[in-house]
Amino acid sequence: MTTASAKQAQSRPAYAELVRRHQRLHRYGHAAAMLGWDRLAVMPPGGATARAEAQAELDTLIHRTQTDPSWVALLRNAQGESLDPFERANLREMERTWRQANALPESLVEEKTLAGARCEHAWRVQRKANDWRGFLENFRPVVRIAREEARLLAADGGLSRYDALLDLYEPGMRTAELDKLFADLRSWLPGLVAAAVARQAGEKVIAPQGPFPAAAQRELGLAVMKLLQFDFNSGRLDESMHPFSGGVPEDVRLTTRYGKSDFSQSLMGTIHETGHARYEQNLPRDWLGQPVAMARSYGIHESQSLSFEMQLGRSRGFVGLLAPLLVAQFGDQEAFEPENLHRLLTRVRPAKIRVDADEVTYPAHVMLRYEIERALIESEIEPDDIPALWDARMAELLGVDTRGDFADGCLQDVHWSEGLFGYFPSYTLGAMYAAQWLAAIRRVTPDCDELVAAGDLTPVFGWLKENIWSQASRWETAELVVRASGAALDTAHLRRHLQARYLGG
Amino acid sequence: MTTASAKQAQSRPAYAELVRRHQRLHRYGHAAAMLGWDRLAVMPPGGATARAEAQAELDTLIHRTQTDPSWVALLRNAQGESLDPFERANLREMERTWRQANALPESLVEEKTLAGARCEHAWRVQRKANDWRGFLENFRPVVRIAREEARLLAADGGLSRYDALLDLYEPGMRTAELDKLFADLRSWLPGLVAAAVARQAGEKVIAPQGPFPAAAQRELGLAVMKLLQFDFNSGRLDESMHPFSGGVPEDVRLTTRYGKSDFSQSLMGTIHETGHARYEQNLPRDWLGQPVAMARSYGIHESQSLSFEMQLGRSRGFVGLLAPLLVAQFGDQEAFEPENLHRLLTRVRPAKIRVDADEVTYPAHVMLRYEIERALIESEIEPDDIPALWDARMAELLGVDTRGDFADGCLQDVHWSEGLFGYFPSYTLGAMYAAQWLAAIRRVTPDCDELVAAGDLTPVFGWLKENIWSQASRWETAELVVRASGAALDTAHLRRHLQARYLGG
Repeated sequence: MTTASAKQAQSRPAYAELVRRHQRLHRYGHAAAMLGWDRLAVMPPGGATARAEAQAELDTLIHRTQTDPSWVALLRNAQGESLDPFERANLREMERTWRQANALPESLVEEKTLAGARCEHAWRVQRKANDWRGFLENFRPVVRIAREEARLLAADGGLSRYDALLDLYEPGMRTAELDKLFADLRSWLPGLVAAAVARQAGEKVIAPQGPFPAAAQRELGLAVMKLLQFDFNSGRLDESMHPFSGGVPEDVRLTTRYGKSDFSQSLMGTIHETGHARYEQNLPRDWLGQPVAMARSYGIHESQSLSFEMQLGRSRGFVGLLAPLLVAQFGDQEAFEPENLHRLLTRVRPAKIRVDADEVTYPAHVMLRYEIERALIESEIEPDDIPALWDARMAELLGVDTRGDFADGCLQDVHWSEGLFGYFPSYTLGAMYAAQWLAAIRRVTPDCDELVAAGDLTPVFGWLKENIWSQASRWETAELVVRASGAALDTAHLRRHLQARYLGG
Repeated sequence: MTTASAKQAQSRPAYAELVRRHQRLHRYGHAAAMLGWDRLAVMPPGGATARAEAQAELDTLIHRTQTDPSWVALLRNAQGESLDPFERANLREMERTWRQANALPESLVEEKTLAGARCEHAWRVQRKANDWRGFLENFRPVVRIAREEARLLAADGGLSRYDALLDLYEPGMRTAELDKLFADLRSWLPGLVAAAVARQAGEKVIAPQGPFPAAAQRELGLAVMKLLQFDFNSGRLDESMHPFSGGVPEDVRLTTRYGKSDFSQSLMGTIHETGHARYEQNLPRDWLGQPVAMARSYGIHESQSLSFEMQLGRSRGFVGLLAPLLVAQFGDQEAFEPENLHRLLTRVRPAKIRVDADEVTYPAHVMLRYEIERALIESEIEPDDIPALWDARMAELLGVDTRGDFADGCLQDVHWSEGLFGYFPSYTLGAMYAAQWLAAIRRVTPDCDELVAAGDLTPVFGWLKENIWSQASRWETAELVVRASGAALDTAHLRRHLQARYLGG
């Protein structure tokens, strides 16, 4: 410690101690993150039990560290100490972290983990067997526990029950605001979907001819990550059954999966994960380990992956950059002509599965889940009511018939089986934020799209770095949005983006 | 916990608590082992600082857990509880672990880590520059601290200083015993080296023609590991700059390095590491996490890798199994004829470098280091005296002139730079144990070599599993040796083995 910082520590001992504790938690978290990556990316199956025990032991250690009674006085005393605005933001996030870790009794946390694990484990088979009745048996206790969790968090934070869960993933976001945003979306999205489908009906699209060897797809992924300025000195690309972005900001671990007959899933998946990765890699390094240096929210995180995958990745200019990379790996094909490639990557098709959905129909999938999970947590409906609601809303929003098909209907996602409620809105908030960021970028750099087409991505990355990545959790979410883009979150940007891309403006 | 084990726990509360604590330490150790493997095998360089901090935090946690004052009463009370012989062996190992963790004040541990890291870091450059003078500057404090460490450990265990260090790696082994073993070796080894060199002088050996692509070498390594019954469900093979065997018993991670012009280093290195790995993979699973279930010692561990690499791996029968695997990967070559391959893998060449030494000259390298480091720790010599001693003993034992060549002389190993004294004897103890095991195996299975030649390795693996792997730390080292082989450690077995292989019996 330098003399200056030692003096500072003396003048605000409680804050200094909180900083030290978070540093330690960050290091424990580093170990936990790496064990998690290893398990999914490289661990042989025989290591599973020992790994589960080691991970649980680390989780216990982290939880014990976070719930030590001495935090209460430290947080209170730090409030009265002399802190600069950045440190005050850090203290605000420290309190948020502490509240979340301490709101639930340990017995409920354990009960939740067990019930979620049981339900998720059985779900893997039940989904394939289209077994909604069997799923319900394990799902009812999951819902009961989630309602109890919401009740406790709500009491602690003075929020409605669903808002208390939503706040875990999108701090500051409330149902009242979300309802307005989604109501607006609902007013124009079904029409936009229909118009896009009609417009594309007459388009001739040439399908690429496979197979696409895994090694060539990996080379393509690495080339695209390089184009997207992924820092390979602080991260890796590997394979796993379910692609994810893991690791720590100093060492981001992406994974993808290579399907031999289709390269686009691994390609666009890699672009998506690279968006998450660059956010993590560009969080303020000097403050890493402190809550203020962490990514702002799941919605803001998703706005980075979608800025990369949807806004940038499927734009005409960027598709023009992708085309020669495809030719280099798979040889020349008519399908790789930029115009055709762009059509391929912007097909709109209302369908049952969220994770395969295009960006136009995707928000409908999210709104449907939001509506159901909010009502479920607020006890307005019961688990038994889900299929009928699902069928009705899918028909209404996308004109898709899901009756009797639970597997590709309400059983398709893993989230609910694990008791993860309040997360789904992040996906569409991310899409809306991303559209707003790109609108802001085009205001600053009107020839942004021409520059991208010419291979210059700095207008996009420079803006994101300055306005989002480097800001981390410096501001609460709503303030971050205004500071970055000049206005509050507004669905108009997503609407304009979709109209421009899919209806020709 | 079952009712039976709950009752048991009630009747011996101290022992039960010790078991729980070691379980927790094992899980922390799992995390530390995996972070260590990851750092050397896959981590990008930019992750180094965060990783070092996370690893240090885990080390601190483990040390804090091991040095909690409450252990003293637990260990004392457990002594008076009713334990079965296996549990009593576990308690004996618990005490050993505790003594090691508590013998040194934290300040000395820190000082040692810092001085070792500084010396090792500079050594990397100084070795290349042949800079003994520069090395000495950092090495003197390393020796001073090691002497202090030895003094404290010796006082605690009632041993001589060097014995106290030796005991860390080969529990129960003493200088008095080692001196006898090495004196015997010294009486016949130089003559055996000379005779083997003379005998091989007229041999015609055909050198394999490279290059040997890394991918083919990896396939070869995997095939050999399969032949050696490595459990791929509980382990992996990867690449790293410096090959090692890491991970945990439930998930053993081997690494190797592929030199394009020579396949034999990665091949024999992989066989060596597979010996270490099978020991770990076959430790008693039900007791994993307890000290009694850990590998007995570094010497016994090395006896497994050398049973694989030297005893089995370079035997005529096994080389006959290797030959077709080489042809499968690199194509047919005259050099891969079993007779020629065997000559290649059993060349005797007195030379400067220990890690490249054949099994006949290797013990000379170890005896030399043992003599010097013992005298150094006992303050009979000073660091400045090392080069002259080195030159004299290398001339005497191997007839090799090392004068003025520090780089490939006393600066060649990393061990001393890091303050690792007392470890070197393990290598040659391992070679002696390994020869003793194989002699015992041939007594039980007289046609062992014919069976191996026919591809049946069960006589070897069955014996090792029953007598060594499954015994873990159940017995003190000397008793393990007698129980396994029917007699105390005896250099005659190594001598007979070397005579048979290198002088034709």
